[in-house]
Amino acid sequence: MLREDAEIIIKEAIRQVMPDEAVVRALEGKEFGSGRIYLVSVGKAAWQMAKTAEAVLGERIEAGICITKYGHVKGRLNRVRCFEAGHPVPDENSFLAAEEALKLTENLQAEDTVIFLLSGGCSALFEKPLVTGAELADITNRLLACGADIVETNTIRKRLSGVKGGRFARHCSPARVYNIILSDILGDPLDMIASGPACPDRSTCAQAKAIAEKYGLKLSEGAMVCLEAETPKELDNVETVVTGSVGNLCRAAARACETLGYRTSILTDCLDCEAREAGRFLAAVAKSHQGRSESLAFIAGGETVVHLTGKGKGGRNQELALGAAEGIAGLEHTAVFSVGSDGTDGPTDAAGGYCDGGTMERMTRAGVDIYRTLRENDSYEALKKVNGLLFTGATGTNVNDVAVLLIKR
Amino acid sequence: MLREDAEIIIKEAIRQVMPDEAVVRALEGKEFGSGRIYLVSVGKAAWQMAKTAEAVLGERIEAGICITKYGHVKGRLNRVRCFEAGHPVPDENSFLAAEEALKLTENLQAEDTVIFLLSGGCSALFEKPLVTGAELADITNRLLACGADIVETNTIRKRLSGVKGGRFARHCSPARVYNIILSDILGDPLDMIASGPACPDRSTCAQAKAIAEKYGLKLSEGAMVCLEAETPKELDNVETVVTGSVGNLCRAAARACETLGYRTSILTDCLDCEAREAGRFLAAVAKSHQGRSESLAFIAGGETVVHLTGKGKGGRNQELALGAAEGIAGLEHTAVFSVGSDGTDGPTDAAGGYCDGGTMERMTRAGVDIYRTLRENDSYEALKKVNGLLFTGATGTNVNDVAVLLIKR
Repeated sequence: MLREDAEIIIKEAIRQVMPDEAVVRALEGKEFGSGRIYLVSVGKAAWQMAKTAEAVLGERIEAGICITKYGHVKGRLNRVRCFEAGHPVPDENSFLAAEEALKLTENLQAEDTVIFLLSGGCSALFEKPLVTGAELADITNRLLACGADIVETNTIRKRLSGVKGGRFARHCSPARVYNIILSDILGDPLDMIASGPACPDRSTCAQAKAIAEKYGLKLSEGAMVCLEAETPKELDNVETVVTGSVGNLCRAAARACETLGYRTSILTDCLDCEAREAGRFLAAVAKSHQGRSESLAFIAGGETVVHLTGKGKGGRNQELALGAAEGIAGLEHTAVFSVGSDGTDGPTDAAGGYCDGGTMERMTRAGVDIYRTLRENDSYEALKKVNGLLFTGATGTNVNDVAVLLIKR
Repeated sequence: MLREDAEIIIKEAIRQVMPDEAVVRALEGKEFGSGRIYLVSVGKAAWQMAKTAEAVLGERIEAGICITKYGHVKGRLNRVRCFEAGHPVPDENSFLAAEEALKLTENLQAEDTVIFLLSGGCSALFEKPLVTGAELADITNRLLACGADIVETNTIRKRLSGVKGGRFARHCSPARVYNIILSDILGDPLDMIASGPACPDRSTCAQAKAIAEKYGLKLSEGAMVCLEAETPKELDNVETVVTGSVGNLCRAAARACETLGYRTSILTDCLDCEAREAGRFLAAVAKSHQGRSESLAFIAGGETVVHLTGKGKGGRNQELALGAAEGIAGLEHTAVFSVGSDGTDGPTDAAGGYCDGGTMERMTRAGVDIYRTLRENDSYEALKKVNGLLFTGATGTNVNDVAVLLIKR
């Protein structure tokens, strides 16, 4: 019964953050005036998003470009040319496709609009290096190797790119850019998502040079010149809407819980702690809310982390669920489950894991040692033995994860 | 301002779980009939609890015994003899004092009452070994060394004791036992607190023998005989009330928050995950609840754990607060703090730690590397530099910890 509730909640939550639903929401009632409309769609969900935009806007679209991962183009689109390119490492096809997008959007007029659809993975898929591709890759690798953090790395990289750090939107001006984002980064920091092709850049040349100096980064003459060129600090032609994110995922899960009769609290939509400890925390919440007069649900969305100590098979959602199993052991009508919205949790074919009050006992009977399992990061095999794996198949969206605690009256 | 709120909340929450408040609550309106009343008070808070019971019941108390840690007797009591004994390892004084308590409570009548006051630490302080003290210590050490868990260890130990596993209450019968507990164990499992001198024992001789066999435990002839003697499975002369526990602590903290204008949720009163990850979880809750129209408070009580990776100085409450610092960095009017109700967090003179939205920046300015600090378990020195330590002094009570997230409007 709880298991069925879990399946319903997962299905409904993911449906609401599918690229098509998200794009329809963003385009609904939107007016684009009398100018031309161009479409640029980039990311793992680019094809689905472009297809939906085409379905909504039809012949209003003048032309468009879609850039996604290899194998992610599912068919021809009418007015949108589709490209596949390298991910997570950009390749020549990434550069070529970006060049095409830049060509499509040059010499536009103030009344024109570029609908710019972004989803996860677009950092690699959408790139026009201002140095050679080889030097760009080399600089990135050296920054990572010497311990530069993501903000420092991006500060350098934005200046080596012809599209990042707001430069794509500046390229489109005076046309307006309507930026629709399906976000896979917690808190939706617009300058971080794809390094913000349509977002004013807060970092400065002075910072970039200080970072290069801090890490003793050897740069070519060309790269040195790039660090001197400032990125846009203001962009008055951009409107951005985050239409699909872990916040939407959590709210959709909450609505599904309410529909099933659970009084629901969203604890957080930016969970980022260790997966199994998040599970323990939710189990502690479960223990303290037993015996109430109504059914309760608690939702914690985000993207937890796993510090590997073993070589088993699993994923962060499976570890989160397993982390709750001991705490809720023996509690009737209580379950904790967690799923990744993309339908693949870690390097497994499961979307996540499910544990309830009976899971510990079922594991003991099945000969599973939960402590060893966690030590070995082997959640997949353990959950498999107790019917604790959740499957959705690849969903075609990616807005992080959602964990749910259910206490049914 | 947040810091002042934190101080008020801590002071008020601890006041409500002080031994005197707790004992007064338990004795209020309680009728003991016409029989004699004897007092046996054991634990770290035994002296304070006995003193309060004396103050409430005065000359109704026939006689009493108080057994506490060395240095914890704060003066003479009128009708109660005070003993100090070994903790956490029982010593000859523990055995002597328990013997006195048994003498005081033998040959009682059905109309008599033994008021049995229990607080943390009484496992060691109240013991009558049925084997030699040396053999008892040796068996305990060997059980721990071979990896026996606390339930297994207690199953053996209860049978080697003349007072544990319900035997003290059986000794008092036919007199009634009114057992007032100040609990320092999450979830208040009555058979675990001091190994349940007044609680029917659920473990069996068969289990005890199986455990001895499982670990190849070599026992003396006398100890073998002890394992054959069953503990009481029913006790119809006992009434138990848990008057002070982490649940009371959380509810008192919640009332204090409400009084200060915070709309308050108790997330849990049995938190038991890794301290710093609990802090990260609370920070994630904080981030998702910014910008509301009212002030919010979230309470998580319990006893978190710390897995040591360094040799610094700190405690679990300080690590919890520090674990939240990064997540709430830059958030205005947001603070996370955590304190131990006994006033000492780990081997430090602080009761806990406090972090708010400005703590990260203050740490950076003070040259504190928070990642190194956590890796080295060095929370005390880091918090000290940013005025993030909370001090209460030794409080005289011990009902675990409470962590609070405040978001002030």
